[in-house]
Amino acid sequence: MAFVSLWFKTVNSMKVVKFGGSSVANAEQISKIIDIVTADADRRIVVVSAPGKRHGDDAKVTDLLIALATAVLNGENHESALKAVVDRYAQIQHELALPKSVVETIEADLRGRIGSRGSNDLQFMDTMKASGEDNNAKLIAEAFTKKGHPAKYINPGEAGMLLSDEFGNAEVLPESFEKLAALKGESDIVIFPGFFGSTKAGDVATFPRGGSDITGAILAAAVKAEVYENFTDVDSVYAMDPRIVPNAPAIDLMTYREMRELAYAGFGVFHDEAIIPAVKHEIPICIKNTNRPEAPGTLIVPERKYEQTEVAGISSADGFCAIYIDKYMMNREVGFGRRLLQILEDEEISYEHTPSGIDNMSIILRSEELGKKEKTVVERITNELAPDAVSVEHGLALLMVVGEGMHYAVGQAAKATNALAEHGVNIEMINQGASEISMMFAVKEIDRKKAVLALGHAFFG
Amino acid sequence: MAFVSLWFKTVNSMKVVKFGGSSVANAEQISKIIDIVTADADRRIVVVSAPGKRHGDDAKVTDLLIALATAVLNGENHESALKAVVDRYAQIQHELALPKSVVETIEADLRGRIGSRGSNDLQFMDTMKASGEDNNAKLIAEAFTKKGHPAKYINPGEAGMLLSDEFGNAEVLPESFEKLAALKGESDIVIFPGFFGSTKAGDVATFPRGGSDITGAILAAAVKAEVYENFTDVDSVYAMDPRIVPNAPAIDLMTYREMRELAYAGFGVFHDEAIIPAVKHEIPICIKNTNRPEAPGTLIVPERKYEQTEVAGISSADGFCAIYIDKYMMNREVGFGRRLLQILEDEEISYEHTPSGIDNMSIILRSEELGKKEKTVVERITNELAPDAVSVEHGLALLMVVGEGMHYAVGQAAKATNALAEHGVNIEMINQGASEISMMFAVKEIDRKKAVLALGHAFFG
Repeated sequence: MAFVSLWFKTVNSMKVVKFGGSSVANAEQISKIIDIVTADADRRIVVVSAPGKRHGDDAKVTDLLIALATAVLNGENHESALKAVVDRYAQIQHELALPKSVVETIEADLRGRIGSRGSNDLQFMDTMKASGEDNNAKLIAEAFTKKGHPAKYINPGEAGMLLSDEFGNAEVLPESFEKLAALKGESDIVIFPGFFGSTKAGDVATFPRGGSDITGAILAAAVKAEVYENFTDVDSVYAMDPRIVPNAPAIDLMTYREMRELAYAGFGVFHDEAIIPAVKHEIPICIKNTNRPEAPGTLIVPERKYEQTEVAGISSADGFCAIYIDKYMMNREVGFGRRLLQILEDEEISYEHTPSGIDNMSIILRSEELGKKEKTVVERITNELAPDAVSVEHGLALLMVVGEGMHYAVGQAAKATNALAEHGVNIEMINQGASEISMMFAVKEIDRKKAVLALGHAFFG
Repeated sequence: MAFVSLWFKTVNSMKVVKFGGSSVANAEQISKIIDIVTADADRRIVVVSAPGKRHGDDAKVTDLLIALATAVLNGENHESALKAVVDRYAQIQHELALPKSVVETIEADLRGRIGSRGSNDLQFMDTMKASGEDNNAKLIAEAFTKKGHPAKYINPGEAGMLLSDEFGNAEVLPESFEKLAALKGESDIVIFPGFFGSTKAGDVATFPRGGSDITGAILAAAVKAEVYENFTDVDSVYAMDPRIVPNAPAIDLMTYREMRELAYAGFGVFHDEAIIPAVKHEIPICIKNTNRPEAPGTLIVPERKYEQTEVAGISSADGFCAIYIDKYMMNREVGFGRRLLQILEDEEISYEHTPSGIDNMSIILRSEELGKKEKTVVERITNELAPDAVSVEHGLALLMVVGEGMHYAVGQAAKATNALAEHGVNIEMINQGASEISMMFAVKEIDRKKAVLALGHAFFG
């Protein structure tokens, strides 16, 4: 019976914990994470980043590694760049009173990577960048063990983290999940470096942006974790941007969908694409603070109970623009919209929304997407679609009012539009109903803060 | 100097007047139109339809002609069908005390058309249908002249109304406008049959739906008319559907754009596509009532002065549906929207709007457009776009709140959404800002009348 209980314990109550760069930047932070992990026996798999910034002006180890790899690729003397990396680990080793051999191993590892450089520069760059997480994981495993908590560094490639061979932009291969599920059987605490895996050919390859978040999400999905705890440097996600609304309430619980809608316009806690594996496998995600682990954090779940009038949060972001196109009888012209979107696709421009009137259509997009292509796009629209008018409005901000019950509540739109009108904010665009859980407003950038305060007052008092 | 004045009079103060089928359905109505035309010396060009219904159960002459042509095409005895057509003209001739030869000429004309039937059935059908307007124009010209107002029937083909050879769906050829401008020089009142013209090969071809409206709009543009008067059986266009709001105010003046937005959802005074030639040449259009010509009617102009808070009208229509598509991370998928629209284009389905959330997109379309293709479309979306979910919501109504100043007024959205909320109408969708002059709401069909009343009360008191 004891065995069965233990087995259930292992399978059902395992937490995957991920620590970002600032949480593993120095000895002090690493001590905190050891305390956090060992405070809960379910925290069995720990994903770590490379050491991040210790203060505002500091360099991230990943950036030092990019400088080192670049020096090597340029055939320059790279000893000082190498020393800068090794010194960061040496300081941590010293402060944690780990054996010097730890740093010697790291230096040997780096020289080995440089020495075995092949003909593919992207692959070499990935190998060098990945060493940041890889060596930090080895060091942190030693630190856990030294403190009396047996921990084991796991090599991603050996454990089955198999990636496509798109260096710098790799994707996990489907077979990885089954292989990585074996990590459930480890008796020691697993210290798993984030950000990279191995191609089938055995080369190191890295994920795109948010790499360590991706690793954690994959492991959480593979071992069917009870929860994926993502430790950052904020207590929780807030219902509004605390820079605009200093007393914004924390969000205790929200759904993946709410998180997506909020993340879209300014909720930059993590890169939302990174957590897809966890979302797909319906693993709850908890955002917590390494520096205040006692705070409950924000739990993000597949579904939650909700009140119809309840709003989860209000997010906002500057930097949008709109292309307006007018053409009499446009809506009788078969293929007009499709041809317009084809122009954007040809020019490799991502757009956000395409609200339309009767004889007009707008494309809402991020200003950085349009950028220098504006002239080309306007010319192509003019020549290929023969509109009566085409113009571009810059300086728009988007606001999202997000809540699972939004679609079912009479009067939510009235509450929002009233609040904006009372504060003198002109609404450039409203888009409600496409999504069941959000209302979107476009306002001028100069009105954004005023609009957030107005909506915050209306929905959160 | 007298000559110069007269010349200016002819060029600058010419009105093109169009009468629909109910305005020329019998002798009583034709007498009215003679009074109307002769009451204003500027009414120089009169476009007439075929005789329409005299009462609810009556047949339109055009429908009698289609029955006649069908009998001929089927090789059936068509004498009774022929007699039905001739009898309608005979009754009008008798009541107007015109010579019997008028009817004899019409009967000979119809037998001539049947006798000269060629191998192209569509062309034959067009020839037969067009005779309805053509013979009515001849008869009406006689009636004007008999009453002491010299009037001249004009044959469209001879006057230069040249059309593409798409029988039943012809378009005017650009050179027609210059040729038709010569009508300015006619000293008699011009009676011009609507609905048809001639191909370059000399065959009769008809316009699509709204054919006589198209003829009037083309002539108004060709002669640069001061105004294009479109006589129907309503006093004016109303700010709301009088069947829902019996005391709805009349619209005295609106812009083309307002007309388009209102026409889109239920303002069925005329087929808005029909008047494109007048709109393109910026000819004002006046909707008037043959039965109450003293009523000022509704004037539709290129531009007007407006108050920011002024709403021109509120229209609504049932019969819409929405295809909802959810896919996590949809908005990062390049080409998703374009591929979705491509499916609709492949299936020859026109859509109205494509509001989008972050991870979802809706297609709003007329239910009749989706119809039996629903299963195919849903399957193609499922197979080709791999969404997380796709569903179709039926029974939606669209409401348009239209006014030139809409875009610039803070609080219009609040006023509308408040009104709907206070009356317990849930808003399925809001689309504001794509068009500068309207706000669109989708509600359930069962809520439509309540919604119109609520908005009417809010904007018109």
